[in-house]
Amino acid sequence: MIRTPFSLLAASLLATSAPTADPVTPGMIVERAPTADWAPVAPEDLLLIDLAGGGQVAIALAPEFAPVHVANIRTIARAGWYDGLAIDRVQDDYVTQWGDADGHKPSPPGIVAHPAAEYDRAAAGLTPVPLPYRDSYAPATGFVGAFPVAADGDRAWMTHCYGIVGVGRDMAPDTGNGQELYAVIGHAPRALDRNVALVGRVVAGMELLSALPRGSGALGFYADPKQRVAIARVRIAADLPPAERPAYQWLRPESASFAAWVKLRANRDDAFFRHPAGAVDLCNALPPVRPAPRS
Amino acid sequence: MIRTPFSLLAASLLATSAPTADPVTPGMIVERAPTADWAPVAPEDLLLIDLAGGGQVAIALAPEFAPVHVANIRTIARAGWYDGLAIDRVQDDYVTQWGDADGHKPSPPGIVAHPAAEYDRAAAGLTPVPLPYRDSYAPATGFVGAFPVAADGDRAWMTHCYGIVGVGRDMAPDTGNGQELYAVIGHAPRALDRNVALVGRVVAGMELLSALPRGSGALGFYADPKQRVAIARVRIAADLPPAERPAYQWLRPESASFAAWVKLRANRDDAFFRHPAGAVDLCNALPPVRPAPRS
Repeated sequence: MIRTPFSLLAASLLATSAPTADPVTPGMIVERAPTADWAPVAPEDLLLIDLAGGGQVAIALAPEFAPVHVANIRTIARAGWYDGLAIDRVQDDYVTQWGDADGHKPSPPGIVAHPAAEYDRAAAGLTPVPLPYRDSYAPATGFVGAFPVAADGDRAWMTHCYGIVGVGRDMAPDTGNGQELYAVIGHAPRALDRNVALVGRVVAGMELLSALPRGSGALGFYADPKQRVAIARVRIAADLPPAERPAYQWLRPESASFAAWVKLRANRDDAFFRHPAGAVDLCNALPPVRPAPRS
Repeated sequence: MIRTPFSLLAASLLATSAPTADPVTPGMIVERAPTADWAPVAPEDLLLIDLAGGGQVAIALAPEFAPVHVANIRTIARAGWYDGLAIDRVQDDYVTQWGDADGHKPSPPGIVAHPAAEYDRAAAGLTPVPLPYRDSYAPATGFVGAFPVAADGDRAWMTHCYGIVGVGRDMAPDTGNGQELYAVIGHAPRALDRNVALVGRVVAGMELLSALPRGSGALGFYADPKQRVAIARVRIAADLPPAERPAYQWLRPESASFAAWVKLRANRDDAFFRHPAGAVDLCNALPPVRPAPRS
């Protein structure tokens, strides 16, 4: 039996045409979503990390979940404080982390040095689009904008999922101040939910964080400082001239396209699948993101 | 506020000593588990993949879940058929896949060319150690040996989790025959459960699969064949002289150590945590594995 690469598991994440009789795939729904179903990441909420070796990581910030920490991050970026720092920790199936690896740099001025814990917030004021499936960790889950959210009673919080960005910190009650950040690169470590301030989601350049060599030191820190991955500069997109700003969009969870996409993610009926799951996990249903089409 | 790297998120996956007052961490439970709580991967079930560029990936095979597919894999390995093939697909947050990238190699003799679908099996005869938390995809989950398992009524199946290995295939009813394999390198794609024959779990060398550059072609295939990662040889450990065999162990899910570890994974009470999750997801509780200690 000879297989061509394209046929192997092809239908499991079909994003383009393939030689099947599939009526509709999740990828096709995203491709066909009308312009109105996409929402823009605000330039003020778009953090751009340029690696010294090339490539840019773009993070959509989430002030609705951690306003003080996000404000700190904007201030730190605008002070140029992140420039010249490095990725110093890559722990397999867990996180990639960056910041002031040696801890020698004085804190930037103008930040809230000791923010209150923004690990969860009042559910009131958020209107999540619910995900109607069981979750291992919370009684209710759903989406607010591009972000996954869980709720219990009158509290709600962003959850750890692949690509979600959080604030490194010391032991409680310290909450970190945004000088050290990490992104999830493995199966969602949901036990960290409500224990860390989550501040955003990687919307582009994820592979620049996830495909790095794993650190051989304890907790995945690079044992040799030479292994660190240098960060050239970090900016807020709003500070670039409009014509030079990268721009990203997410598929609105309130849209009909997203509803159809989630339903199909949970109930695949194309030629590859014999047994639709009948459900989809929160972190397997993050609202799709894309670069904004050029107008 | 100055942070040293070790203090950042340190307690979240403490595997070694750290300057905290934590009474017990999950890592400490694993460290202290008595010898009797560890079970060996049988040499006949240990697939060893040597990459041409160096490094070895070790996979514990699971004949209890897919006996015909696993027998095929042993036969293919013993024929030397995998030798000289390559990793040709790395799709971010999904899978790393290897096999006969160009599909030019005649199938090895002695295999079952068209195995029946071993996507699930009778629950009878398996005695999973149950995980007492909700799961998004199945009414019941737990562990059999080193493997995650889900069950519904009288059927049971291994589940996709980080590091789980499956058999690439074409469209149903084809089930693949073991010539193409993949490993999960992202958030568990559980929608594939019961749609693919799962045959094992990576027990060492995972970073050799997860940290590879992502493919830029459709579905993460390497667009340029030069990007492929060559496989030097693939062997079954039982075929090596006993003194030369790598050996791995898993923490028995039936053991008191594992029970204590799972409980603590779900209810962290060390200094870092303010809000224990009260639960742990199946794929966040895979039985720990390690190289067998030298006796």
